[in-house]
Amino acid sequence: MRLDGRQPNELRAMTITPNYIKHAEGSVLIEVGETKVICTATVEERVPPFMKGQGKGWVTAEYSMLPRATQVRNQREAARGKLGGRTMEIQRLIGRALRSVVNLEALGERSITLDCDVIQADGGTRTTSITGAFVAMTLAMAKLVKDGKLKVIPITDFLASVSVGVVNDKAYLDLKYEEDSSAKVDMNVVMTGTGKFVELQGTGEESPFTHSELDTLIKLAQQGIQQMVAEQQKALGEELTARIGKGQAE
Amino acid sequence: MRLDGRQPNELRAMTITPNYIKHAEGSVLIEVGETKVICTATVEERVPPFMKGQGKGWVTAEYSMLPRATQVRNQREAARGKLGGRTMEIQRLIGRALRSVVNLEALGERSITLDCDVIQADGGTRTTSITGAFVAMTLAMAKLVKDGKLKVIPITDFLASVSVGVVNDKAYLDLKYEEDSSAKVDMNVVMTGTGKFVELQGTGEESPFTHSELDTLIKLAQQGIQQMVAEQQKALGEELTARIGKGQAE
Amino acid sequence: MRLDGRQPNELRAMTITPNYIKHAEGSVLIEVGETKVICTATVEERVPPFMKGQGKGWVTAEYSMLPRATQVRNQREAARGKLGGRTMEIQRLIGRALRSVVNLEALGERSITLDCDVIQADGGTRTTSITGAFVAMTLAMAKLVKDGKLKVIPITDFLASVSVGVVNDKAYLDLKYEEDSSAKVDMNVVMTGTGKFVELQGTGEESPFTHSELDTLIKLAQQGIQQMVAEQQKALGEELTARIGKGQAE
Amino acid sequence: MRLDGRQPNELRAMTITPNYIKHAEGSVLIEVGETKVICTATVEERVPPFMKGQGKGWVTAEYSMLPRATQVRNQREAARGKLGGRTMEIQRLIGRALRSVVNLEALGERSITLDCDVIQADGGTRTTSITGAFVAMTLAMAKLVKDGKLKVIPITDFLASVSVGVVNDKAYLDLKYEEDSSAKVDMNVVMTGTGKFVELQGTGEESPFTHSELDTLIKLAQQGIQQMVAEQQKALGEELTARIGKGQAE
Amino acid sequence: MRLDGRQPNELRAMTITPNYIKHAEGSVLIEVGETKVICTATVEERVPPFMKGQGKGWVTAEYSMLPRATQVRNQREAARGKLGGRTMEIQRLIGRALRSVVNLEALGERSITLDCDVIQADGGTRTTSITGAFVAMTLAMAKLVKDGKLKVIPITDFLASVSVGVVNDKAYLDLKYEEDSSAKVDMNVVMTGTGKFVELQGTGEESPFTHSELDTLIKLAQQGIQQMVAEQQKALGEELTARIGKGQAE
Amino acid sequence: MRLDGRQPNELRAMTITPNYIKHAEGSVLIEVGETKVICTATVEERVPPFMKGQGKGWVTAEYSMLPRATQVRNQREAARGKLGGRTMEIQRLIGRALRSVVNLEALGERSITLDCDVIQADGGTRTTSITGAFVAMTLAMAKLVKDGKLKVIPITDFLASVSVGVVNDKAYLDLKYEEDSSAKVDMNVVMTGTGKFVELQGTGEESPFTHSELDTLIKLAQQGIQQMVAEQQKALGEELTARIGKGQAE
Repeated sequence: MRLDGRQPNELRAMTITPNYIKHAEGSVLIEVGETKVICTATVEERVPPFMKGQGKGWVTAEYSMLPRATQVRNQREAARGKLGGRTMEIQRLIGRALRSVVNLEALGERSITLDCDVIQADGGTRTTSITGAFVAMTLAMAKLVKDGKLKVIPITDFLASVSVGVVNDKAYLDLKYEEDSSAKVDMNVVMTGTGKFVELQGTGEESPFTHSELDTLIKLAQQGIQQMVAEQQKALGEELTARIGKGQAE
Repeated sequence: MRLDGRQPNELRAMTITPNYIKHAEGSVLIEVGETKVICTATVEERVPPFMKGQGKGWVTAEYSMLPRATQVRNQREAARGKLGGRTMEIQRLIGRALRSVVNLEALGERSITLDCDVIQADGGTRTTSITGAFVAMTLAMAKLVKDGKLKVIPITDFLASVSVGVVNDKAYLDLKYEEDSSAKVDMNVVMTGTGKFVELQGTGEESPFTHSELDTLIKLAQQGIQQMVAEQQKALGEELTARIGKGQAE
Repeated sequence: MRLDGRQPNELRAMTITPNYIKHAEGSVLIEVGETKVICTATVEERVPPFMKGQGKGWVTAEYSMLPRATQVRNQREAARGKLGGRTMEIQRLIGRALRSVVNLEALGERSITLDCDVIQADGGTRTTSITGAFVAMTLAMAKLVKDGKLKVIPITDFLASVSVGVVNDKAYLDLKYEEDSSAKVDMNVVMTGTGKFVELQGTGEESPFTHSELDTLIKLAQQGIQQMVAEQQKALGEELTARIGKGQAE
Repeated sequence: MRLDGRQPNELRAMTITPNYIKHAEGSVLIEVGETKVICTATVEERVPPFMKGQGKGWVTAEYSMLPRATQVRNQREAARGKLGGRTMEIQRLIGRALRSVVNLEALGERSITLDCDVIQADGGTRTTSITGAFVAMTLAMAKLVKDGKLKVIPITDFLASVSVGVVNDKAYLDLKYEEDSSAKVDMNVVMTGTGKFVELQGTGEESPFTHSELDTLIKLAQQGIQQMVAEQQKALGEELTARIGKGQAE
Repeated sequence: MRLDGRQPNELRAMTITPNYIKHAEGSVLIEVGETKVICTATVEERVPPFMKGQGKGWVTAEYSMLPRATQVRNQREAARGKLGGRTMEIQRLIGRALRSVVNLEALGERSITLDCDVIQADGGTRTTSITGAFVAMTLAMAKLVKDGKLKVIPITDFLASVSVGVVNDKAYLDLKYEEDSSAKVDMNVVMTGTGKFVELQGTGEESPFTHSELDTLIKLAQQGIQQMVAEQQKALGEELTARIGKGQAE
Repeated sequence: MRLDGRQPNELRAMTITPNYIKHAEGSVLIEVGETKVICTATVEERVPPFMKGQGKGWVTAEYSMLPRATQVRNQREAARGKLGGRTMEIQRLIGRALRSVVNLEALGERSITLDCDVIQADGGTRTTSITGAFVAMTLAMAKLVKDGKLKVIPITDFLASVSVGVVNDKAYLDLKYEEDSSAKVDMNVVMTGTGKFVELQGTGEESPFTHSELDTLIKLAQQGIQQMVAEQQKALGEELTARIGKGQAE
């Protein structure tokens, strides 16, 4: 039995509150167990210098934790004067993952910045950020369509993410903080709604793992992500859900 | 008539949700109109180097806005690699204001850091931060008493803050963003529960003001702050309210 | 009796030496008691990016102290790699105060930077900087008129600043360092030549203050600033003095 | 046929020159095709603050590229004043990978820093760094044994790394730069000498991939890493090779 | 004839005002022509970490220019967030030069920091800083003797510095800004009172120079420095002058 | 007799390997005794902002040491977030020295950046960098001629550099690390192939030196540099050697 009474293959309770921040073009508060992340999507009618003049758009992400999102207070990166390696790694991952389901040509020369701010952390903040940012991005693109700037939502598939790991020699889905801290193997998986891998990051710093353990973990993740996509669809509503992946194959 | 239908001397609706973040020793979500700030209080059993060995505690504050708390996205200070002047000015103000009602000797050699993170901004973010941080700090100190580390809550008085200003030649209480932007005179006032001034910062960059205008603004602020203190007392409850300012005169 | 034998409402001796630095368009050495500040005004035929294309000018300020301006040596901010909060707060104040008496439209798309460098500090460095910077700015604008770039000096009024405070339960004008350190209430006031407030920053971190104490302090400041303006006029000379505030109402 | 005439499952030529830098406790020049990396191992008789007093050692890594290791010159991170996200991500990966085969208790309270400096880049710089750093670390530990500071080399297994990817719909081993740039799926794999996974980082930003494609790539990597370990053993010599993984199971 | 009417081997007018800044243990305002530098000497009863426990003292220097010391305003290094290469080069030179005439063992475990702040620049700011800093340092050491912390002034010889250069094919002593800008060869020389070289930095970026040209320049410098030392002695007075170099041979 | 058995006027063994890095327009590995430096020359078809529109080119340099080039590991400047004073001083010297033999007008509006990365240090890293960078720069310019972008190599003379010093009261040529550390006088000399001085930096921090000692050192350097130029010519080959200094007098 797990710490919070879950089955090994059971997700934590998940809630997505759309339009949580009034100024953003798209936003959600996503809660996965006690992990809470505010995701906002900002649309800007320009692209970064390295993308200029290609007729394509850009999607990027930033990630941060409030100082007291964690059990012990973390010094602000703004006060330290630089981003830490973990932050950079996570925000590169979020951006890369989201771009994998966006048709950048169809987006046109504009950029969408996903800000993922963890206000309370209990494991899985990067995977929760991806899952929430996908919804915020979709809402922002739906607004672009509504405002007449785009004809269709340039998203090719749903996208969600979950962690899996080996804890006490058992494969667990969706690790909370205490599980994550004691996991021998730890893996973050990002998949599309149609079940393909976008990112796979597995680490066995504590204990190397076999090909067969890898398979078990991957299947757990696959199942969890399907449920997460269903939650995303509930939050977006039937009408918006139906407009994703329609006629925008890259 | 004001933009949102308020009377000149009318505060916006105000909600304080205590214990909003589970890890912090004290925390609130404070909402004043559409301005929303998460305030957490972190207790650490040490003081900064310049305070060591004096047998006294320390109270300090940090302030930040999420990038999309505002109408237009602001670049993160962590990404820019340094805190802006406005941020530094505000966090110095919050810390100074809170220290004015804390008996630092009675607190003992420990420090309390108030983190004020604006998740949605609509004017008055610094004054709202002070009003919310006071409650978060009180909750953290009550926990210190409960844990047997302090005998009484070392707070000498209530403390709240509000903005006032001259907009269209009229004196207004509690400016929202559009009012603040067009104010000729803009003043932030911090007062104690017993009606004394702790901070007074008035600026007439657009138009210098007279002694008589100053008096009018100050009286408006005084009245608003009394109502805010009543809200703080409601959020803290009768029992905690009764323990503030008891027998800890400096 | 005060430390240096002054009456409570007595300013320190004040000297303004115009044209102290040969390269600057305007400059002074201002001495208020033992506080000495070099103020230079630099004119540049461009405005910062956020002001471009508005047909208006800009006035801004920078403030610094030499490492040994103080009793104990301060590390250089250049060596630390960033500006401190106190520096930022002060330079924002100086810039804001000076802009309040400049007609930016009449200045045209050019900017004036006031550099206030404290070479010796004995209390009141920010107020002395404002008082000195006003004269340096006026000299630089007079040069613009002389060079045919402006028709009139686009300054609407005189401007000076002084500190007041409550020390040993007495209200004192123009605090020197030891008085400032032991003040229960400390206030910096910026006023125009015609007696209106531009900035009012009062702090009672040590002891909250009443409305009536506020009134006493403000009146002290008002009287001191009138004397300071007289010194500015003496430094500028009759002819230049007569050209300030003439026909440039905003 | 691949650009350089290799078979899909063929590694590039690989050379490891031990003791390349005379000052370091361990060092190699590793060349994989045209990618060349200098790896040095520095032993210090102290651990970082967060490891103090635990009786354990620490292994960490830093990674950099000379400005002209690449086709176009890259600005130095020292000149830019901060490490980029890619650099941080890579050096975290190298350190984590190496720690997975070190018995930190047996190492004792000392630290080993692996510096991986790419002097010429042609794809696979992070995997080449790991493969080379393993040898440099082993040499440094052998020196600790020789100097009487350790009884045995506290390494539990060999460790090497290679990239694999899908290029033109074919699975390729050990991508050179042009292949890497056009890969639809790109994966870095770190494995032990006994064939277990330590790190698996797969990205399908250009095109999501299936479980079956994942299997194909992983098998390619497994085969390549076995050959790389053989090269490491050749560079270390029979005697040293025989001393790795002997009696130091964690 | 030179721009300002001087002979090729003629120094500019030079004035040294001792005790210019009241807080510093030693200070001067040094003026060489229109170049003006404030030099302060700060004594601290500690040495930097790398000098600890050696029973020796340390002498170091920092150099800066006010933004408007020059014809065109320079951005502050504090605002840019880092020291420029020129600044670092100069402050390393000043510290090294001064240490060459100090008996660090006799100074004891304390440090002297020379701050050289250029308030007006007209060529020769680094050489003027050295010449002035020598006097400020001497005054600070005399104070240490007076306070009973040292028995003798631990200075082994006088020290001054001047620039020489080839301008319009003529060798000139003590270049002012316009001469310096057009010099084909430019050399800064630091010498002791007894005529030995401490630093020699000659640059022929515009035009390489011969051994014979070098000799001419060096002799010019030698003569100028003798006159400068005489000025230093005048500023220090006979009594202090007599105490330098007495019985403290290293 | 010297530590490594050399005569006082004997250079260490010197090897220059041209075209060491395949991506750079010009590159060498230069070894002087155990000091090893990789020098690359990067050509870019643009000049820095301050050189724009003058029809002239620019030559600049950057210098760095790998962390373990030295006996004790040095922290990376990229990790510290800024360049040290020594690095800045050296790279300014290298750039200035090389520019002295380049006809910038003939180079045209393009820039050449010399990166000098010390992979192993044993004294004389800055002089070795200059000597190597000269060859890398020449190779890059020969490529510009070959590519039809220039008609002749715009270099006016050969250029090399060596250190000399007084060690144990003897004048030595080409100091290795231990000699350099114990030298009383230390001088770096940069000369042209025709025997003129470009840079002369002598320091007697440990012991001031006389004009006659200076002469002795300079003659040693002159002789050493002639031998170094011969090595440069050998590395470049007869044909290229013959094309340097031909018809490009400034």
